[in-house]
Amino acid sequence: MYKAPVEEIAFTLKHVAGMGEAMSNGLFGDLGEDLVDAILSEAGRFATEEVAPLADIGDRQGARLVDGEVRLPDGWRDLYRSWISGGWNGLTAPEAFGGQALPHMLNVAALEMWNSGSMAFALAPTLTMGAIEAVSAHGSAALKDKYLAKMVSGEWTGTMNLTEPHAGSDLGVLKARAERRADGSYRISGQKIFITWGEHDAADNIIHLVLARLPDAPAGTRGISLFLVPKFLVNDDGSLGPRNDLFCHSLEHKLGIHGSPTCTMIYGDGRFGGEKGAIGWLVGEENKGLACMFTMMNNARLAVGMQGVAIAEAATQKALAYARERTQGRAPGWSGPGMSPIIEHPDVARMLLTMKALTQGARAISFACAHAIDMSRRAGDTSRHWQERAALLTPVAKSFSTDAGVEVASLGIQVHGGMGFIEETGAARYLRDARIAPIYEGTNGIQAIDLVTRKLPLSGGDQVRGFIAELKSVADAVRHSNLDGFGETAARLDAGIADLDEATTWLLKMLADDKAPEALAGATPYQRLVGLVLTGCYLAKGALAESGDDGKGEGRIALCRFAAENLLAETTALRDRVINGAASLAAARILLA
Amino acid sequence: MYKAPVEEIAFTLKHVAGMGEAMSNGLFGDLGEDLVDAILSEAGRFATEEVAPLADIGDRQGARLVDGEVRLPDGWRDLYRSWISGGWNGLTAPEAFGGQALPHMLNVAALEMWNSGSMAFALAPTLTMGAIEAVSAHGSAALKDKYLAKMVSGEWTGTMNLTEPHAGSDLGVLKARAERRADGSYRISGQKIFITWGEHDAADNIIHLVLARLPDAPAGTRGISLFLVPKFLVNDDGSLGPRNDLFCHSLEHKLGIHGSPTCTMIYGDGRFGGEKGAIGWLVGEENKGLACMFTMMNNARLAVGMQGVAIAEAATQKALAYARERTQGRAPGWSGPGMSPIIEHPDVARMLLTMKALTQGARAISFACAHAIDMSRRAGDTSRHWQERAALLTPVAKSFSTDAGVEVASLGIQVHGGMGFIEETGAARYLRDARIAPIYEGTNGIQAIDLVTRKLPLSGGDQVRGFIAELKSVADAVRHSNLDGFGETAARLDAGIADLDEATTWLLKMLADDKAPEALAGATPYQRLVGLVLTGCYLAKGALAESGDDGKGEGRIALCRFAAENLLAETTALRDRVINGAASLAAARILLA
Repeated sequence: MYKAPVEEIAFTLKHVAGMGEAMSNGLFGDLGEDLVDAILSEAGRFATEEVAPLADIGDRQGARLVDGEVRLPDGWRDLYRSWISGGWNGLTAPEAFGGQALPHMLNVAALEMWNSGSMAFALAPTLTMGAIEAVSAHGSAALKDKYLAKMVSGEWTGTMNLTEPHAGSDLGVLKARAERRADGSYRISGQKIFITWGEHDAADNIIHLVLARLPDAPAGTRGISLFLVPKFLVNDDGSLGPRNDLFCHSLEHKLGIHGSPTCTMIYGDGRFGGEKGAIGWLVGEENKGLACMFTMMNNARLAVGMQGVAIAEAATQKALAYARERTQGRAPGWSGPGMSPIIEHPDVARMLLTMKALTQGARAISFACAHAIDMSRRAGDTSRHWQERAALLTPVAKSFSTDAGVEVASLGIQVHGGMGFIEETGAARYLRDARIAPIYEGTNGIQAIDLVTRKLPLSGGDQVRGFIAELKSVADAVRHSNLDGFGETAARLDAGIADLDEATTWLLKMLADDKAPEALAGATPYQRLVGLVLTGCYLAKGALAESGDDGKGEGRIALCRFAAENLLAETTALRDRVINGAASLAAARILLA
Repeated sequence: MYKAPVEEIAFTLKHVAGMGEAMSNGLFGDLGEDLVDAILSEAGRFATEEVAPLADIGDRQGARLVDGEVRLPDGWRDLYRSWISGGWNGLTAPEAFGGQALPHMLNVAALEMWNSGSMAFALAPTLTMGAIEAVSAHGSAALKDKYLAKMVSGEWTGTMNLTEPHAGSDLGVLKARAERRADGSYRISGQKIFITWGEHDAADNIIHLVLARLPDAPAGTRGISLFLVPKFLVNDDGSLGPRNDLFCHSLEHKLGIHGSPTCTMIYGDGRFGGEKGAIGWLVGEENKGLACMFTMMNNARLAVGMQGVAIAEAATQKALAYARERTQGRAPGWSGPGMSPIIEHPDVARMLLTMKALTQGARAISFACAHAIDMSRRAGDTSRHWQERAALLTPVAKSFSTDAGVEVASLGIQVHGGMGFIEETGAARYLRDARIAPIYEGTNGIQAIDLVTRKLPLSGGDQVRGFIAELKSVADAVRHSNLDGFGETAARLDAGIADLDEATTWLLKMLADDKAPEALAGATPYQRLVGLVLTGCYLAKGALAESGDDGKGEGRIALCRFAAENLLAETTALRDRVINGAASLAAARILLA
């Protein structure tokens, strides 16, 4: 059973991702270590004791559509009530609406634990937080006053309605319609698919954020507007009015996250009588909806990255426990009586250490991204720099972490042997749940396009170059530490960073020369290259931070060395694919015709 | 919908894996190209038209245990009858018992197609073929006469009963008991788990091959005997007698292959009355059961490798079809009206080409392994050489192909985007089905141990060294072809082969120096290194074979180049993990304590 790794998370936040320094510099106000620890510890308790025990039943029963109503798995309604009581929904929300305005780093750390408990359950608050953010940033004062407090408390949940059957990655072609009404509101109609927690029975109201097109809107992405469309209309006194003209038509039958209702939503069908068209209110300006949506999508991408970290952590814990207990064969060097625990076999040890290194690397990258987001809001003069840093790290945090989630979950099954294939063991669910994360909130391929074409050119390339320079200083610090335990780590980091440097320079040149196909052909290998080098460097940073304490840092140094001497060997191949892979890819297109 | 790639398979058999040469040399008797093509074509038709259409219902319904009887999914009983009528079960079986004694290569090729149609269904004949082989090789004349003909026809199916809850990879600790009876038969009792097709309603009888221990047997693997234990006892006239004392206690609830009943079998419970203990007959000698079982396990390992190839092929076909049809966004260079098919996006093209290259590489390796098995039985003087070649290739064919199955199926989901996560699409089933193949018939970690510790030392290392020399000649042939389309292929193959050479030499030295832990730490990366280099070389062999025809070989050359210039870049990292990875792995063990 999953146990939230509160200490490891706190360590990574403070000593790897930058929270400690930010606190020392007073950037987080009077937030002290004690409060941070207390919040993490309580969030971890909630994940371990309340969420995780209901994950399996959620997977087995799934969400069900009964007579047009979505029933959550047994116990999940109460779990959600308990979630609200805990006040978890408003960790980073504005204080004016009942939130706690805490750093995003804390929220992201807590999200990891909740997602480890049950990714399907944690999706509800994740979507609500995104909606809160969009309304906070772009909604009118009236909308904020009417909706935000109950969304922050969690009494009402939120959704994002983007996708239509023909419009997934390319939202420019979406067809949902919005018509102006005399009173300043709008009538929305159309079909949306893949709407996470689009309908359920745990909250009193559901606030849908819906992308739609006005009759006179320009074609493409410049003609999309964002609307707030509640399930139940809300009276001026805050009480619930009549049902709005929208409903859940069907639920998807998915590979994983069964407890999370994935809805096809129909707007403006007239099923509840009265004039057709769901009533909605504009968020932001007309035809500027995509920009508003992107506000929340960036943080949503990081939140999806946390799902990858979360599954990787939970899968690693499960595999470790099994490998310590299960005995089979006699490992080389095993001197005990009878069979050895399988963890003693070198191949099993390799799998488990790979799982650990990827999990901790993905966690550090994601926390560093959250740190940059926090800094961009609080660091005054340097906020532009931190905004860019957050922008640069977001696609890496999303893609590297979610790929790691899938890879680690799959290794977790392998460690379990035949038992891993049996659903009751629970290892298979992690793979099933994890598999969606590289796809939604922008596929990892789209993250790579974003990274290469929009993020590398930030500040004319200086943002990424500055970041690489920081990484070099980590490698230098490892070298100057003179700690034997690091083995070849410094040299391996140097080599990985040099690969990254070279690939980056090449990509910037391709972009400058207007050679998009060449740059895009290597975008995915480049994205992984960044993630692997960051994994090595962040593990080193953590190892250095703890190396002072007598022996306490030994494990961190050893894991860092394992990552450097085993996983980072891949960077050369990745650099090579970036720089030399495009021509053969282009030539082989004849096979795809 | 899957369509059997008959031409591609025939090409790989004849021009890459060695069947053409063997036929020319008369090693396959009067077997001609026409007959080979006819068999492949008809096997492909059966897979495409009869098996594949029933795969989804098999997955959705699964096998069910009702009142102690296992019910197959709707239509599967008839499908199995149709299978028998087609005479497919006896393709390689001895002619004396109704088989066709055809080369194993043909059987393996057909197995690929049947597994693409439905891996869950194809498991039934796969297990039966293994049982036929064990009885043919080790059974007494009386056993053969009584059982083989009906197993060869498929009227009766066969199983392998090895695993017990505490005895999986390590069979030495199994506990099932066998007691001698006065008439020369035995009474078997015990519990066996994970028994594929252990009980079902499609055949008149089920012939279980069961590993058990005699009362006076030595401990460990040297005290295991193999028994033939039929579900229904068979009278001397071949008619069915009373029910034997064995039954299916429960079915596993698995991640995939739902249509295949995975049974817990109980022997000797006395449930059907009479004396307790299922009646069985010894196969081979007492206490030599494991050796007998290994006869069939080697071929079973290759058969599991074919499952990996099969899923990879089916997943690639599905993803290709979707990527050609689905439009989204505008790829760089796209000049058509509106959105481009997603196949035009470089990242999607990269995924699809990776899928194609891994599939064809895995297929070629597996067919080459089957070729070696055929040669070992027919090549007279050189049969020892071919026996070793088959032994060397078996773990690679099993592990590389099944890893490729998982990787390709996962990429297939990714190509489908959100639709890939929806079960009705069918892409997710491939990942669920594929995920067992790296585990059963010896986990891929165990294959790696086998490859490094038992196969590399064959003929004092000369077998593997000779094989590497052959690979060098393929790289030379590419260089001497002077075909521009190959790009850097020759240099990349050289580099990959050099990595393989170096890693092999290092491992042989570690074994000679009695440094098992060091050798085993790198066994899995080494295994993948072999598979990748073979992929490059076999793709090159195929490309060279077809490069004579005007332009026809262009696609093969392009895919070979893509593999060489994109996938083979990984070999350096793998060599590095083999040679330099052990120390950090050993040091990091403190984290696993």
